[in-house]
Amino acid sequence: MQIRQLFDADTSTYTYFLYDEKSKEAAIIDSVKEQFERDKAYVEQLGLNLKYALETHVHADHVTASGLLRQAFGAQVGVHESSRSACADILVQDGDKFVLGDQVIEAIHTPGHTDGDVTYKIEGALFTGDALLIRGCGRTDFQAGNPEQLYDSITKKLFTLADDTTVYPGHDYAGFTCSTIGEEKAFNPRLGNNKPKDDFVAIMNGLDLPNPRRIDVAIPGNMKCGLA
Amino acid sequence: MQIRQLFDADTSTYTYFLYDEKSKEAAIIDSVKEQFERDKAYVEQLGLNLKYALETHVHADHVTASGLLRQAFGAQVGVHESSRSACADILVQDGDKFVLGDQVIEAIHTPGHTDGDVTYKIEGALFTGDALLIRGCGRTDFQAGNPEQLYDSITKKLFTLADDTTVYPGHDYAGFTCSTIGEEKAFNPRLGNNKPKDDFVAIMNGLDLPNPRRIDVAIPGNMKCGLA
Repeated sequence: MQIRQLFDADTSTYTYFLYDEKSKEAAIIDSVKEQFERDKAYVEQLGLNLKYALETHVHADHVTASGLLRQAFGAQVGVHESSRSACADILVQDGDKFVLGDQVIEAIHTPGHTDGDVTYKIEGALFTGDALLIRGCGRTDFQAGNPEQLYDSITKKLFTLADDTTVYPGHDYAGFTCSTIGEEKAFNPRLGNNKPKDDFVAIMNGLDLPNPRRIDVAIPGNMKCGLA
Repeated sequence: MQIRQLFDADTSTYTYFLYDEKSKEAAIIDSVKEQFERDKAYVEQLGLNLKYALETHVHADHVTASGLLRQAFGAQVGVHESSRSACADILVQDGDKFVLGDQVIEAIHTPGHTDGDVTYKIEGALFTGDALLIRGCGRTDFQAGNPEQLYDSITKKLFTLADDTTVYPGHDYAGFTCSTIGEEKAFNPRLGNNKPKDDFVAIMNGLDLPNPRRIDVAIPGNMKCGLA
């Protein structure tokens, strides 16, 4: 599987293209509406057949390009069923598989940042959205977020995978592009080094963060696949 | 070889850590002074033995952290011999090899952006600095830049490598993180698709770009490994 990581500097969002080199069947994970023209040109240049526009969750900080990518390329939009998205073609469930040529992407339901977070897994790599970030994790104070649930998602579903599994996050604000499960198990300050659940919950409940600046536009926009 | 790509958003600069997982011997390519604390913490956390702080060239747009990394970890600073750097420990020449455990980094002299540009090569990947960028290349209008030379560096030394060789550039301004030799040979608008040298030279000589905003600080600062 070919992996291409792309960055939206304005929202520090990572978008990923995954494609099977032989068949050119492709998926995009967490597209950004403002980058639609860039990503459209990239698909055309590489001759990709964009089958899927997958979301790790309904984002509160940026609007997706999934609706535009469906219009342009016929990509099926996938969002977790808990999102109650009215625009998705596929209401993703834990264990769902998305086939690109000989390659397979598997969905792992990792709720806690929102109730509908999905981590996408390929051999050797995870696309964790805002569940597990590099030396951090997504906040848990809105969109049915729940710190106990996020702790279980990360420690029971992700930290049980091989240490050398690459972690590709949905954002990074310090310039890191990837990590590994082994590194996050060792060094994640919120839940690495076997930190107990109670400590994690106390950290998350004490964050006292301001709302994302675009939340009032982003959530309703994403519920309509960016076509609102 | 483990590769970690890091980003400095202020100058759109990519920094790379390369390390041998077994021995933990490491090199950093194109560090950024403002990111020294981030990178120092990363070296310490991963338990790396930072042997080399390599530069692809004397940068005009940001100041290196190489002097600070030498002070902190004993890393040897490597800059191409054409740079006439007074602070470097190693005046890098074409063909030089830097050994990290069982892994080897090889220097390829790729002048044209400056006269002292080096592309660092490991198996399957190139760190091209500002010689070859994604769908672009470095400018050629100062620091002994020369478009004819850059054309030859890219087409004769880089485009002759395997198509699936990953290209990790020194910068990107559109959010791309990597490319391949095959893609750049096909799609680079300045010299892909077998564009003749004369056309490339005309493009480069017609760019009429303003000076980098930090050039008066960056070049003299880098000539002193960022310790000026």
